[in-house]
Amino acid sequence: MTKQTIKNIGVFTSGGDSPGMNAAIRAVVRTALYYDLKVTGILRGYDGMIGGDFLAMERRSVANIIQRGGTVLKTARSDEFRTKEGRKKAYDQLKSQNIDALVAIGGDGTFTGAKIFYEEYGLPVVGLPGTIDNDLLGTDFTIGYDTAINTVIDAVDKIRDTAESHDRLFIVEVMGRDSGLIALRSGIGTGAEAILIPETKTDIKALLARLEVSRKDKSSKIIIVAEGDDAGGAFEIAKNVKEKFPLIDTRVSVLGHIQRGGAPTCMDRVLASRLGVAAVECLKEGKTGEMIGIVNGKIHFTPFGQAIKHNVDVNKELLKIVEILSL
Amino acid sequence: MTKQTIKNIGVFTSGGDSPGMNAAIRAVVRTALYYDLKVTGILRGYDGMIGGDFLAMERRSVANIIQRGGTVLKTARSDEFRTKEGRKKAYDQLKSQNIDALVAIGGDGTFTGAKIFYEEYGLPVVGLPGTIDNDLLGTDFTIGYDTAINTVIDAVDKIRDTAESHDRLFIVEVMGRDSGLIALRSGIGTGAEAILIPETKTDIKALLARLEVSRKDKSSKIIIVAEGDDAGGAFEIAKNVKEKFPLIDTRVSVLGHIQRGGAPTCMDRVLASRLGVAAVECLKEGKTGEMIGIVNGKIHFTPFGQAIKHNVDVNKELLKIVEILSL
Amino acid sequence: MTKQTIKNIGVFTSGGDSPGMNAAIRAVVRTALYYDLKVTGILRGYDGMIGGDFLAMERRSVANIIQRGGTVLKTARSDEFRTKEGRKKAYDQLKSQNIDALVAIGGDGTFTGAKIFYEEYGLPVVGLPGTIDNDLLGTDFTIGYDTAINTVIDAVDKIRDTAESHDRLFIVEVMGRDSGLIALRSGIGTGAEAILIPETKTDIKALLARLEVSRKDKSSKIIIVAEGDDAGGAFEIAKNVKEKFPLIDTRVSVLGHIQRGGAPTCMDRVLASRLGVAAVECLKEGKTGEMIGIVNGKIHFTPFGQAIKHNVDVNKELLKIVEILSL
Amino acid sequence: MTKQTIKNIGVFTSGGDSPGMNAAIRAVVRTALYYDLKVTGILRGYDGMIGGDFLAMERRSVANIIQRGGTVLKTARSDEFRTKEGRKKAYDQLKSQNIDALVAIGGDGTFTGAKIFYEEYGLPVVGLPGTIDNDLLGTDFTIGYDTAINTVIDAVDKIRDTAESHDRLFIVEVMGRDSGLIALRSGIGTGAEAILIPETKTDIKALLARLEVSRKDKSSKIIIVAEGDDAGGAFEIAKNVKEKFPLIDTRVSVLGHIQRGGAPTCMDRVLASRLGVAAVECLKEGKTGEMIGIVNGKIHFTPFGQAIKHNVDVNKELLKIVEILSL
Repeated sequence: MTKQTIKNIGVFTSGGDSPGMNAAIRAVVRTALYYDLKVTGILRGYDGMIGGDFLAMERRSVANIIQRGGTVLKTARSDEFRTKEGRKKAYDQLKSQNIDALVAIGGDGTFTGAKIFYEEYGLPVVGLPGTIDNDLLGTDFTIGYDTAINTVIDAVDKIRDTAESHDRLFIVEVMGRDSGLIALRSGIGTGAEAILIPETKTDIKALLARLEVSRKDKSSKIIIVAEGDDAGGAFEIAKNVKEKFPLIDTRVSVLGHIQRGGAPTCMDRVLASRLGVAAVECLKEGKTGEMIGIVNGKIHFTPFGQAIKHNVDVNKELLKIVEILSL
Repeated sequence: MTKQTIKNIGVFTSGGDSPGMNAAIRAVVRTALYYDLKVTGILRGYDGMIGGDFLAMERRSVANIIQRGGTVLKTARSDEFRTKEGRKKAYDQLKSQNIDALVAIGGDGTFTGAKIFYEEYGLPVVGLPGTIDNDLLGTDFTIGYDTAINTVIDAVDKIRDTAESHDRLFIVEVMGRDSGLIALRSGIGTGAEAILIPETKTDIKALLARLEVSRKDKSSKIIIVAEGDDAGGAFEIAKNVKEKFPLIDTRVSVLGHIQRGGAPTCMDRVLASRLGVAAVECLKEGKTGEMIGIVNGKIHFTPFGQAIKHNVDVNKELLKIVEILSL
Repeated sequence: MTKQTIKNIGVFTSGGDSPGMNAAIRAVVRTALYYDLKVTGILRGYDGMIGGDFLAMERRSVANIIQRGGTVLKTARSDEFRTKEGRKKAYDQLKSQNIDALVAIGGDGTFTGAKIFYEEYGLPVVGLPGTIDNDLLGTDFTIGYDTAINTVIDAVDKIRDTAESHDRLFIVEVMGRDSGLIALRSGIGTGAEAILIPETKTDIKALLARLEVSRKDKSSKIIIVAEGDDAGGAFEIAKNVKEKFPLIDTRVSVLGHIQRGGAPTCMDRVLASRLGVAAVECLKEGKTGEMIGIVNGKIHFTPFGQAIKHNVDVNKELLKIVEILSL
Repeated sequence: MTKQTIKNIGVFTSGGDSPGMNAAIRAVVRTALYYDLKVTGILRGYDGMIGGDFLAMERRSVANIIQRGGTVLKTARSDEFRTKEGRKKAYDQLKSQNIDALVAIGGDGTFTGAKIFYEEYGLPVVGLPGTIDNDLLGTDFTIGYDTAINTVIDAVDKIRDTAESHDRLFIVEVMGRDSGLIALRSGIGTGAEAILIPETKTDIKALLARLEVSRKDKSSKIIIVAEGDDAGGAFEIAKNVKEKFPLIDTRVSVLGHIQRGGAPTCMDRVLASRLGVAAVECLKEGKTGEMIGIVNGKIHFTPFGQAIKHNVDVNKELLKIVEILSL
């Protein structure tokens, strides 16, 4: 790839929002200014790119946002950008502003769009992994994951209070349509009695057998279920439990959208800051078409085509820990 | 009523748990010891009374619990105590331990039981209002309400982040089967665009008309619905909105059981401490059959028969504020 | 007083900031717009008034600020406004913008200024009590107090973890130069072993005697000291304790400025919202020269001259509770 | 080393407490029981070992502690254990209980003691890194570090509210007598304008020069100082700033002991759980004399002699990020 001299970087967030996106935007903006580049905010992801929703960013534009959840650039999913016409419009808008490079913050859908766009128009683009699901190859953690699992344990700690007071069984559903990573770490962190995730076959019979054994133990119990678990969500599991053990006081809690918001944790802010700095620096060095992550503590590049894939392996050690500690 | 010399106070929590119950238990225990009385913890409410689940309480039994949600004495709803036989057993158990007075912490179901029990057996008993719903006459605030509304605004602040990032309408369901007080204050506190509560007739048409007007305003919107609202819960409202405005990105979040747990707020701890002290002092002075609350900053007594009633008036001023500020 | 027709309300914050000031600003702005009045933000209190730092406020100017600590209008203490010349400049600036009424949010210094200004120029002005100290007559609670005491108990709960692990005595200094109200409620809320406040004579000898008695009890201990206590701050108390009991592992923690910030609690947001609405409504009705508070649940007016005074009585019942529960 | 059959594991915490120690204790206890081993809690570290302060641990002994700060086994620094006689007593006490292996949770002082004890008596012992400072070789993160940096950013976010409202400069001192790691990550996470740490020479002149440049920028500023910084603590820095810029409204906040407490974050709970499981498993396999950490996501062993050393290198990339983003 030929090194181009970049002068004006466009930055945007796309797909589901995640805590820490603002820290990433801040880092991109400040790093660009540090290197005397212009930087333009693009509102509402690809939709705003098509519509020309641009915002010149100054140092003060990103003051005091590092601690805020959500994204000040707003985000959206764009159907129009999936069409050739949509992308043409987007390109023309960018050209009219002399935006000559892009930083895309989002998940795999965002990167798929970025990949096609780069292939069609050759505008340098790098991606930062912003999603609470932590389901992207090429980075140990995605921006927002650490905050999301802390939101979950906060909520489950509260639920444990009431579960313990009533000797109840709570079945708590957490986010993760294709990935059990939120369920896995938050389940360990809350001392859950069982964790059900899409990556492993859920054996309802075995679960019920375990409950049978521990039934006389009058303490509270928490089961964490990822929304995409193969045995169905929390309500389905609860139905099974209630049929078999009508006397167990069983309740369901679906944590829902609180998992996407909130002030980012320190680790998410640091991760987002590091990645934002790296994004600008590697655009300057001519990199394009890659997602930037951190693997084993070091900046790591992954071509969009590989970052897109979902199949993150679940750490076998973590699964074993659940078994040992929940006994 | 003749003033009896009390020597051994039994304390228990009953019905739904609420944050601050532990602070109340602590205050009852320490105040009893301060006045050289014995104090016995009764586990699992009336069920534990019937079963003889007693625990001698010392100063250290209640150390370091003021900040914990739930109740260390556990709680339950008891069917057996509704029967004459059940209450007979409970009385015999109390007598066998020389428990000669009771402090009952709970809601109106708890007080109904206490009232009947007192009428049948004459054992002095006072009640402390422990419920997140704040729906008892005779106290400005119940133990747990302040914590619950703060849990709600914490959750909705998080939801606002993601609502704002996506320009979404969120319909958030909060607790309150018969009472809109959680919805009302947390709705004002989160700057909700509308608050739907059982105490006022919900006019879906008017709500939709308001959304129509503000549709072009592309910002996020939050509607808070009490679970017992006459228009149905959050999902029902969402159905109505989606039918009329299919283009509005509408989501539902049911906050659920997180509202019952968590470390109590300072006000709940202070309230619970004041009431716990008052409970022991007024038993010593011969009071019985009354719920102890705080009205206009002062300790206030209400006969169980009146505390039971639900129909707390909703503050008209607060309703008007919602209308003005959400415009 | 003659009822004037008000058309443009200026709103500002002054003195120390407190959580909930933004909620009050939001309420003033939205209520003014609701009644078709103009509303102008004045930056940095009286200093900005003199300098003409004005900001036309729209509905969206106050979107999404209800949950933020601090004040978007910024605040300052102004020396120039204490001079006749300064106030003349301020008046001229206001006139040039056709601002014909003021809402002043702050503490007693703020109201002193407002009182003099009103007496000199006759511009209608009402005040809202915004200070974490809760030391103003004419309102049960000031905006920010509830948040501050929750910040304190959060911090002390953390300190209790480490105190308990090490069997330490912690002396924790909280804000309150002239007032012990933060110390008092947060001390009860954290289960402090002693609370030292300026309103009562601190008897160091009695304190040491109590520690002597409880010395063999190896558990942790927390003493809460208001910074303005007559026995000196936390370091002074610690010196006394260490001299007498060199073997007690004694530590000091001065909580400091964290007590002024943070997202306001639900009660502070509701209080600020109610007062903000009332401020505009009573300016419309011709009120001036009064601080608006809430007493016993109802809006309450106090002439500036009386709100200024510090000497809020300390609730005797609360003091007794400390004695009973900390035993 | 010959593989011994271990039957009774003693577990203790020693040195400064850190959040997550309870999660580690829980994991050690449950894993031991899972493998049908006995497990004994030793209270107050080496002091309790000498005094024979033992506690048989069951599954329920560690129920509901994963979310609590501090350590249920308490902790202390022991002078007596530094003597040959003290260690002899400790050994005799352990033998009398048939404790045949140890898990020591603490920092480098803890491991120094464990190393000598193992060399003298041959009792197998492994260590888990429990300290908020993150200053141990052999693990990417120590138990408690993640919680501590989140406590710091929480506090500084609050301070930022008031700094921003008053356009103040705040100098915030965080823990770290020999290590700047808390300051470094929390400084990036709070968007601090400067971070002063012991690992790098602090150039006060350069700092003042930077403040000179940004003086006209009227926004708030935060400087984070590690307590062990070579330029002195926060008060010393403040003195320098005030001398040079008397007009800058400069304040100091020393965060102090709140940094040691609080409910552990999810990452600290997961880390502690993984390490606790690994501790028991590797004692079973005959390992001894090593600290167990996690490096690059995998369990990692470090001989006590190397884990003791302080000189963790500061990540150069992080230092550069501070420079870029704070501009």
